[in-house]
Amino acid sequence: MVRLGIVGYGNLGKACEEIAVSSKDFELTGIFTRRNPQNVISKYGSKVYSFDDIFDFKDGIDVLALCVGSQCDLVDISLCLSNAFNTVDSFDTHLKMTDYYQKLHSNAVKSQTLHYIGIGWDPGIFSLMRAYFSAILPSCDINTFWGRGVSQGHSEAIRKIDGVIDAKEYTVPIEQALQSAREGNCKGLKDADRHTRECYVVLKECENQCEKQLLMKQIQNKIVNMPDYFLGYQTEVHFVDKNTFYKEHNTLAHGGEVIASADVCDNNCTFDFSLRTKSNPHLTASVLLSYAKCNAIRAKSGDFGVKTVLDIPISHLLAGECVDKISRFI
Amino acid sequence: MVRLGIVGYGNLGKACEEIAVSSKDFELTGIFTRRNPQNVISKYGSKVYSFDDIFDFKDGIDVLALCVGSQCDLVDISLCLSNAFNTVDSFDTHLKMTDYYQKLHSNAVKSQTLHYIGIGWDPGIFSLMRAYFSAILPSCDINTFWGRGVSQGHSEAIRKIDGVIDAKEYTVPIEQALQSAREGNCKGLKDADRHTRECYVVLKECENQCEKQLLMKQIQNKIVNMPDYFLGYQTEVHFVDKNTFYKEHNTLAHGGEVIASADVCDNNCTFDFSLRTKSNPHLTASVLLSYAKCNAIRAKSGDFGVKTVLDIPISHLLAGECVDKISRFI
Repeated sequence: MVRLGIVGYGNLGKACEEIAVSSKDFELTGIFTRRNPQNVISKYGSKVYSFDDIFDFKDGIDVLALCVGSQCDLVDISLCLSNAFNTVDSFDTHLKMTDYYQKLHSNAVKSQTLHYIGIGWDPGIFSLMRAYFSAILPSCDINTFWGRGVSQGHSEAIRKIDGVIDAKEYTVPIEQALQSAREGNCKGLKDADRHTRECYVVLKECENQCEKQLLMKQIQNKIVNMPDYFLGYQTEVHFVDKNTFYKEHNTLAHGGEVIASADVCDNNCTFDFSLRTKSNPHLTASVLLSYAKCNAIRAKSGDFGVKTVLDIPISHLLAGECVDKISRFI
Repeated sequence: MVRLGIVGYGNLGKACEEIAVSSKDFELTGIFTRRNPQNVISKYGSKVYSFDDIFDFKDGIDVLALCVGSQCDLVDISLCLSNAFNTVDSFDTHLKMTDYYQKLHSNAVKSQTLHYIGIGWDPGIFSLMRAYFSAILPSCDINTFWGRGVSQGHSEAIRKIDGVIDAKEYTVPIEQALQSAREGNCKGLKDADRHTRECYVVLKECENQCEKQLLMKQIQNKIVNMPDYFLGYQTEVHFVDKNTFYKEHNTLAHGGEVIASADVCDNNCTFDFSLRTKSNPHLTASVLLSYAKCNAIRAKSGDFGVKTVLDIPISHLLAGECVDKISRFI
């Protein structure tokens, strides 16, 4: 049994808890939150502790699943915890990944702890597919499609605009681009050529119709021109009332597709991996805990440092003897 | 540069040669054949030697790609060569894989050589997918579909029947089963419930129409009732003349799909990996040589033993520093 700690108790932390309590592979030592733990109730009766006390649990935890947001907290929390704990996380800010890797690596070497980073579906499963396809078909053209599904980052960016009460952004792959990629004709397309963005926005209360119209126009403008997020994309903005929003836009479903195409001595080869999930956090949690189990076992056998999905052989994720794995999967 | 030797000069050996001679990563030391090498001409001007002389090249070869057939020769040749060479092969008799692994392993430990076995697309890429999906979604139901494409084993089995001059068997996935698997409703289906078999047979010359009719009936019967190969499958047998056969049934195209579906705490997740190739031997050769490169590098750094795709981390298949791989693929 792997003694697991969960740090952060949002959607991902809760999904990790749900999987861990129903699995014979895990014993959940506790959930660690930066909120007042007395205000946090687990529906499974799991123990909830203050994050400030986490170092007291050093000897009772084999691995921590870090389930805090990538945008603000994860890197700092991870660096802080790496002195005492092995960790797995689904850090997903692609551009900051190498920087994070290097900082964490020097900590890990000092403390001889083991850290698996970027463990989710993208980064994570999709990263493994991109790398594997590229290794097998060295000259291949690889395209990643996301969606249809809610992007937390884009939704958050809209929510920060003045006058917005709540918002959700759906990333939607363009069917024609998908089709071209499947046929091996998608070279040189950018993310914006492969996806549209669909936004659903709840407006604050307005004094009158005139003010409302003006505000809608302003918000629409701010969204479609927001650099890095929407500028350059075909973006639809829909204003909806609160009831419609909470009724129709509470989905956790997501998915995506990685397509590689190459000519091997003039013979076209195409690989196409697609993924659909009814719950983004549950899939991410399932990936995270598979690697957490592996992390705990490897750390006990003396492994340390920082690793990504590219560094961990699939056999390490599976229980059993080598010959059993061969007869089951090869 | 990896110094490569190719053993066997059929479709797969030729495809390996074609890739190796156009790659900056390989130097082709030679092709080794059991035919008279003077009768074997390489269109790339590669050196062709007798297999009997292969041990003379021990110091000039980093790794051997074994491109002989799995059904008769591969295991013996591999065991014989393992005393002196590192090897990669695409041995594909699933049922004999663990036995082969164990025999080769004890050789490899003695000689400190490194062997990658079952390296192709199935076994190979598909094995990795099955194992990875199963690791991430522990309770998942996995279905593998092959085709539409020619099965060498089944074609060979038909060719052995008296009165058959030549034959090709196409394995064809049943569209409805594929659809069910994609929707996560394919539990308990056997291979025969997921595939049909389409056979094209060239008959020997017959004295008269009556003899021909009788022979066709006998062959048809032998095919559809052949245990392990056709019995239990929905099998179509078509008799065609030589010209039609060589004109219409010379395709090397193949493909397949691995589909996994699971409920993670009642949330359905589906993974779907599909592969299409215009040339089965070229894709297999591309996989084989990616792993051959890795094998040569790892063997030089002291690695030995027998490994499958499950044991080799993706990062070992890729050149470059760890942070480069992170920024390219994660």
